[in-house]
Amino acid sequence: MSFRTIEWRDDKVVMIDQTRLPGEEVYVEYVDYKSVAEAIRGMVIRGAPAIGVAAAMGVALGAREIIADTHESFLQQLNNVCEVLARTRPTAVNLFWAIERMKRVAEANRDRTLDQLRTILKEEAIRIEEEDLALCKAIGRHGAELIPAGATILTHCNAGGLATAGYGTALGVIRAAHEAGKNIQVFADETRPWLQGARLTAWELMKDGIPVTLIADNMAGFFMKRGEISCCVVGADRIAANGDTANKIGTYSVAVLAKENNIPFYVAAPTTTLDLSLASGDEIPIEERHAREVTHLHGFPVAPEGIRVRNPAFDVTPAGYIAGIITEKGVVRGDYRQGLRALVEP
Amino acid sequence: MSFRTIEWRDDKVVMIDQTRLPGEEVYVEYVDYKSVAEAIRGMVIRGAPAIGVAAAMGVALGAREIIADTHESFLQQLNNVCEVLARTRPTAVNLFWAIERMKRVAEANRDRTLDQLRTILKEEAIRIEEEDLALCKAIGRHGAELIPAGATILTHCNAGGLATAGYGTALGVIRAAHEAGKNIQVFADETRPWLQGARLTAWELMKDGIPVTLIADNMAGFFMKRGEISCCVVGADRIAANGDTANKIGTYSVAVLAKENNIPFYVAAPTTTLDLSLASGDEIPIEERHAREVTHLHGFPVAPEGIRVRNPAFDVTPAGYIAGIITEKGVVRGDYRQGLRALVEP
Repeated sequence: MSFRTIEWRDDKVVMIDQTRLPGEEVYVEYVDYKSVAEAIRGMVIRGAPAIGVAAAMGVALGAREIIADTHESFLQQLNNVCEVLARTRPTAVNLFWAIERMKRVAEANRDRTLDQLRTILKEEAIRIEEEDLALCKAIGRHGAELIPAGATILTHCNAGGLATAGYGTALGVIRAAHEAGKNIQVFADETRPWLQGARLTAWELMKDGIPVTLIADNMAGFFMKRGEISCCVVGADRIAANGDTANKIGTYSVAVLAKENNIPFYVAAPTTTLDLSLASGDEIPIEERHAREVTHLHGFPVAPEGIRVRNPAFDVTPAGYIAGIITEKGVVRGDYRQGLRALVEP
Repeated sequence: MSFRTIEWRDDKVVMIDQTRLPGEEVYVEYVDYKSVAEAIRGMVIRGAPAIGVAAAMGVALGAREIIADTHESFLQQLNNVCEVLARTRPTAVNLFWAIERMKRVAEANRDRTLDQLRTILKEEAIRIEEEDLALCKAIGRHGAELIPAGATILTHCNAGGLATAGYGTALGVIRAAHEAGKNIQVFADETRPWLQGARLTAWELMKDGIPVTLIADNMAGFFMKRGEISCCVVGADRIAANGDTANKIGTYSVAVLAKENNIPFYVAAPTTTLDLSLASGDEIPIEERHAREVTHLHGFPVAPEGIRVRNPAFDVTPAGYIAGIITEKGVVRGDYRQGLRALVEP
């Protein structure tokens, strides 16, 4: 991959600004946790695994900002930092997973000095980033086996290198299939309202020389019905114990259309995206974002002033539509409740 | 309705410029048929019935432009005018229907003077416009009976007053239900890439005080699955003998999602939209439009330069997904082949 989504560099957090792609490839430096929280909320960085990495690095920056004499005071302030970061976006579970992991590390190292603790937290955040990249590569390896040679793969939103520490989940599967010489091509839904498909997926696949065709979201069914799509692969923001999957708004529609046209629909996600505390997708909180994302494009109004808008950012695809959940530990099919639990049990 | 989509005024054709809505309500005057053809191609006017009216008025303008000594020469030149108008857009059958009707009228009045013929053609075009408005009102009456009180109706694209001589087909049903005091509300798909839903449907429903909520196309399934949609009503660009219906791209997806969620999906269209010469929707030609409609918004690029794009403007919804076709002569259900034929047989 010829770009870095997020990295810890010289005690700063550096992110590619995804709000400015594909027009400009700009890297922004963050030195305080509140700005990182703002970056997550404002979608400078997005995608469940990438949000997790950003939150962990945000905690590490926050740890450096804390002025404290005692461990008790430090950990209390660290909790506040974590709360600010946790309040940025409600649906992606990786956010909460990464924050919890950082908190556990802080608690487990109460015997260290505060400066040691700050270093340990920084190292943990970098480890989360490195692990995420490794998870994506493993997801790619497992997923590529499901992709037939010559396949045309439909994807929705951006579950790519830009949505992770690198390589991607759904796009990790696509990258691995491409690297395996399977001669695949991609159809990318533009993914309204934020246009992650048009702006991000198209950009990163073109950059890596993988053939990609851009379509509007409402065209996916047209191409499925005409037999032009071999399979669908998407990412996930949260997967419940029964396999129900929250992902970018419109994913459910892709899944229904795929089922109707007998096309396999796969979800690619690391086990950090599992939330086995939720029995089903009905319990996953769905973020609704600002009307302006729908009514304005580049600041220009495309709808009448004062129009009422609904703007859910995610939907839930019931497990019954999913042909397989591709994780770093292998592909789960059939009985998701049992299969997903088996992945995470020691 | 508080606007006029198209009218013949002072020997000019006046259209509201739909490319500039909702920002500006601008009326453009046309005095020559080639500009009318350009207006149809460039979507100053769109919507199958409105395209039919525009084409008829274009023929009437062309008749006035023709310089001829003989009827033979006049009719030959009129054929050329018709060909130019027919080449503007391939999918909406009303275009061809209106042009054929104008040609038949010219042929049937060979015994008149050329000036009389020009007047007859003008009157015929105005008649087509007036009839279309009456058809829409009748569609509204029949369709409103299908709408339960308190319904939330999802519509796609704009099958409204702006797509017809006035009142609308799908929005005619909605207007009639509203006028009948059924306390309905509308969810409007924004309808990428041209945003007819955001720009036109939202605008004309707000103007008429009918409650409307704008959503992105990929959100329709979300609201259907949550039980927030009572029924779907859309327009049509061409209906084959078996009931298969071509309409704006994305209609097929709405129909599949409606079926999956046990929501009735209706098509509202005048019998001028029927094309019984086609056995099924497989034979309906589908227009592909320019990539720039997808890659640019208000001239601003939203996708990487050089990206490959597919941009089909229509899709075909198989009859099996359609709970009823609402025409000015009543609602056809079940055996569409028989029911549609019965509508047009003398």
